Amino acid sequence: MEQLRLRRVGIDTYRENVAYLHRDCEIYRSEGFQALSKVEVHAESNGRTLLAVLNVADDVAITGPQELGLGEQAFDQLGAEAGAAVRVAQAKPPASLGAVHRKIAGERLGLEEYRAIARDIANNRYSKIEITAFLVACAEAGMEREEVLFLTRAMVESGERLDWGEPLVVDKHCIGGIPGNRTTLIILPIVAAHGMLMPKTSSRAITSPAGTADTMEVLARVELDPARLRDIVRRERGCLAWGGTARLAPADEVLISVERPLAMDSPAQMVASILSKKLAAGSTHLLIDIPFGPTAKVRRHRDALNLRKLFEYVGDRLGLHIEVALTDGRQPVGRGIGPVLEARDVMAVLGNDPAAPVDLRERSLQLAGRILEFDPDVRGGQGYAIARDILSSGRALARMRAIIKAQGAATVVRVAGALQHEVCAERPGYVTAIDNLQMARIARAAGAPLDRGAGADLFKKLGDRVDLGEPLYRIHAEFPTDFRFACEAAAACSGYRIGEEPAPPGD
Amino acid sequence: MEQLRLRRVGIDTYRENVAYLHRDCEIYRSEGFQALSKVEVHAESNGRTLLAVLNVADDVAITGPQELGLGEQAFDQLGAEAGAAVRVAQAKPPASLGAVHRKIAGERLGLEEYRAIARDIANNRYSKIEITAFLVACAEAGMEREEVLFLTRAMVESGERLDWGEPLVVDKHCIGGIPGNRTTLIILPIVAAHGMLMPKTSSRAITSPAGTADTMEVLARVELDPARLRDIVRRERGCLAWGGTARLAPADEVLISVERPLAMDSPAQMVASILSKKLAAGSTHLLIDIPFGPTAKVRRHRDALNLRKLFEYVGDRLGLHIEVALTDGRQPVGRGIGPVLEARDVMAVLGNDPAAPVDLRERSLQLAGRILEFDPDVRGGQGYAIARDILSSGRALARMRAIIKAQGAATVVRVAGALQHEVCAERPGYVTAIDNLQMARIARAAGAPLDRGAGADLFKKLGDRVDLGEPLYRIHAEFPTDFRFACEAAAACSGYRIGEEPAPPGD
Repeated sequence: MEQLRLRRVGIDTYRENVAYLHRDCEIYRSEGFQALSKVEVHAESNGRTLLAVLNVADDVAITGPQELGLGEQAFDQLGAEAGAAVRVAQAKPPASLGAVHRKIAGERLGLEEYRAIARDIANNRYSKIEITAFLVACAEAGMEREEVLFLTRAMVESGERLDWGEPLVVDKHCIGGIPGNRTTLIILPIVAAHGMLMPKTSSRAITSPAGTADTMEVLARVELDPARLRDIVRRERGCLAWGGTARLAPADEVLISVERPLAMDSPAQMVASILSKKLAAGSTHLLIDIPFGPTAKVRRHRDALNLRKLFEYVGDRLGLHIEVALTDGRQPVGRGIGPVLEARDVMAVLGNDPAAPVDLRERSLQLAGRILEFDPDVRGGQGYAIARDILSSGRALARMRAIIKAQGAATVVRVAGALQHEVCAERPGYVTAIDNLQMARIARAAGAPLDRGAGADLFKKLGDRVDLGEPLYRIHAEFPTDFRFACEAAAACSGYRIGEEPAPPGD
Repeated sequence: MEQLRLRRVGIDTYRENVAYLHRDCEIYRSEGFQALSKVEVHAESNGRTLLAVLNVADDVAITGPQELGLGEQAFDQLGAEAGAAVRVAQAKPPASLGAVHRKIAGERLGLEEYRAIARDIANNRYSKIEITAFLVACAEAGMEREEVLFLTRAMVESGERLDWGEPLVVDKHCIGGIPGNRTTLIILPIVAAHGMLMPKTSSRAITSPAGTADTMEVLARVELDPARLRDIVRRERGCLAWGGTARLAPADEVLISVERPLAMDSPAQMVASILSKKLAAGSTHLLIDIPFGPTAKVRRHRDALNLRKLFEYVGDRLGLHIEVALTDGRQPVGRGIGPVLEARDVMAVLGNDPAAPVDLRERSLQLAGRILEFDPDVRGGQGYAIARDILSSGRALARMRAIIKAQGAATVVRVAGALQHEVCAERPGYVTAIDNLQMARIARAAGAPLDRGAGADLFKKLGDRVDLGEPLYRIHAEFPTDFRFACEAAAACSGYRIGEEPAPPGD
């Protein structure tokens, strides 16, 4: 086999190893490579080998006939210098793909098979196509709960694992889907003020108008190096930071890179993804928030119960103490949707502002109470009262300020977007439904979460009485194009339903 | 939304529309695009729009901050010139993806849903990830036979359809998997000599050591423009050409681009793929050859029967007259494996050479006989005798020579590879099994099908007696590296099993 010279191709292939050969490359021609076939690339200098998916280039500006191009991720993984001698050969697909094919055929896989799959995925040996095949094969009814356990365990083992050196490390995770549901920013200072350890790292919003990290970033710096983060956690008993989790359950990161564009969200993958990340992050006690409602991720109470049982089953067997709260997901939480507006709500609750949204405050206290009861010294049923006391006394606000100071206060003062438009009731009556998905869509169209001040500010919630022409919510945007998009989206569908009678209370 | 300048990125993205934005592109940053998200690209000059998957570039040699790069396929599809003004926006996933998600959830889809899917796939609106999701969701038990019918119909409708203007247009298709099974090159001249119309276009080998087109190319040109092909078919009543089918059932071509790297081969996809192509190619009568055996694609008689019924069900409902032959797939057919060696066997049979492989001749006559009985003037049960007569009389050879002459004789004389190695029996006894997969692997390692003279030449077949050290087969290769690979593969596993007793005859 002949040698080629390595070249870095400046394309971010997004967690897929891609190799580029020129169409006139002798090796490409003689080996009979097919586009999209897997090749094995070997660096002479350091002896490293990787698998990559082959793309064919027709432009020497990308890869020349005597070169092998690697996309950014593969180039970094190989760790050789540009110009270094490499060899390339047809690669067999990774052996664990046999198990994927068995899964497609409807078979049940064992722990060793999931281990092999997670290891190959974490080492970037799967193409996007192969990952998709695995995910779809596992989707829906395709996985028994024991298999979810196996997959979770295998994903934890695929990467590093943090150890905080304490017997009680708590975390809280919401499966998402409800705009404005920023309880974590209220729960965390309460729990930390009680003295429990809660090192919280969150992702930025992916498909929602704001994530915990986006909202926290309105108040403080969230990108912190690991040493500083540990220091803050030790001192303040908590943090609200972003990321730094890439080496925890890395197989999960790769799976998510396909789940996201595919909008796949099967219960099995969700449980395995969340629990593997939390276990790798060193959590010992975890509260899961599952909001359900007609426009939530989980639509029916029955499905929420099933999901709860799956979380409990897997958590128990992996030594993670899990509590699951099924919460009202019929409408957005609080008033603001979008980072600045949500941060305003959060600070109003922490500041015991009488105008603070009651639902956000109440929900945060309920959830914080359940976390506090992880503490063996807290008597069952007392968590809520303790949480309320910490909040009312101002200790939660003080702790939040301490954490903001430790992480570094935000240097830019951020305000709600100056472009404003009020969406008004087209008939009098009562608010009988608010569509979470449509409200999220409007807030995103307005520019959230990237434009921190963009979003929507809700004046009316479920059951509220409205007059004809009375404002339901206000759109905020920072840029004219986004503003127009958001107003158009709201004009097409306001997200609100107004009925003659208030809807019967449900949960 | 701002304009960008269109740029052609010289990467063959293999039936996937890919767009490239520079990481510093204002639009990329402000729109909050995610890598792998779908974007809609609109050309101002011709008003055309397409969907593409977004890749992020960090090198202005690929795409600059004011540019939008498109991979070769997407660039061609958009049909605008380099430098033309284009706009790009977040795209919603194609609407038919909703049906794919329902399929993943285990629902049955209807004709209209398959139509929408096939249309979107043919228009390159699906990413590779989305196509994989569709394929895996449909795999195995996931499709009812009526759905296979819907998918087949939808794929036919996704492209052009040929009309030969005759009531009887025959074709023959083998599902593959048996090395050396080149019956088509013998059947076609027999059938054409009888006067039936058989316009045969084949693909080159994908995963096998030789396809019909590869083997024919040893004898004649196979790449012919459509007008010339029609002319040859009209004069000779048949042809053995390559490709030219890209516009027939184009959705199928896109599906295959994923099935291949994924090595997916579900019965439902196989039936829909084969029948949609044949219907679009204007066939009225079709013989399907399903070899079955322990190392064939179809392993059990029961599975072969099920597959036959699926072919019949779909064919009947789409007005295609289908006959299915279940044939012996326990070992390679003929002696040669690889284009030159297989062409030698074919010409020996056509030339009535007493040394010609009996199994290849017999199988070809059986299959040709069944095709001849598609002719209403042929009495039931007489097809075989007519085929034998056409072959024995030399009329089949004469027709083959006429077709070769019409297509243009091969200009390069091709011979079996000069590097040779004989693999010998390690014990005396009888050949009790020959592994089709291993023989194909060895022949491919030797360089087949790209090196036309590479492959294997079998001296012993099932039931043959062998002495210790007697040659079982000979490896041929053209290049030393391939030769070494093939010899190593044979040393690891010869593909032959030698037992004390001849295996009982089976079918």
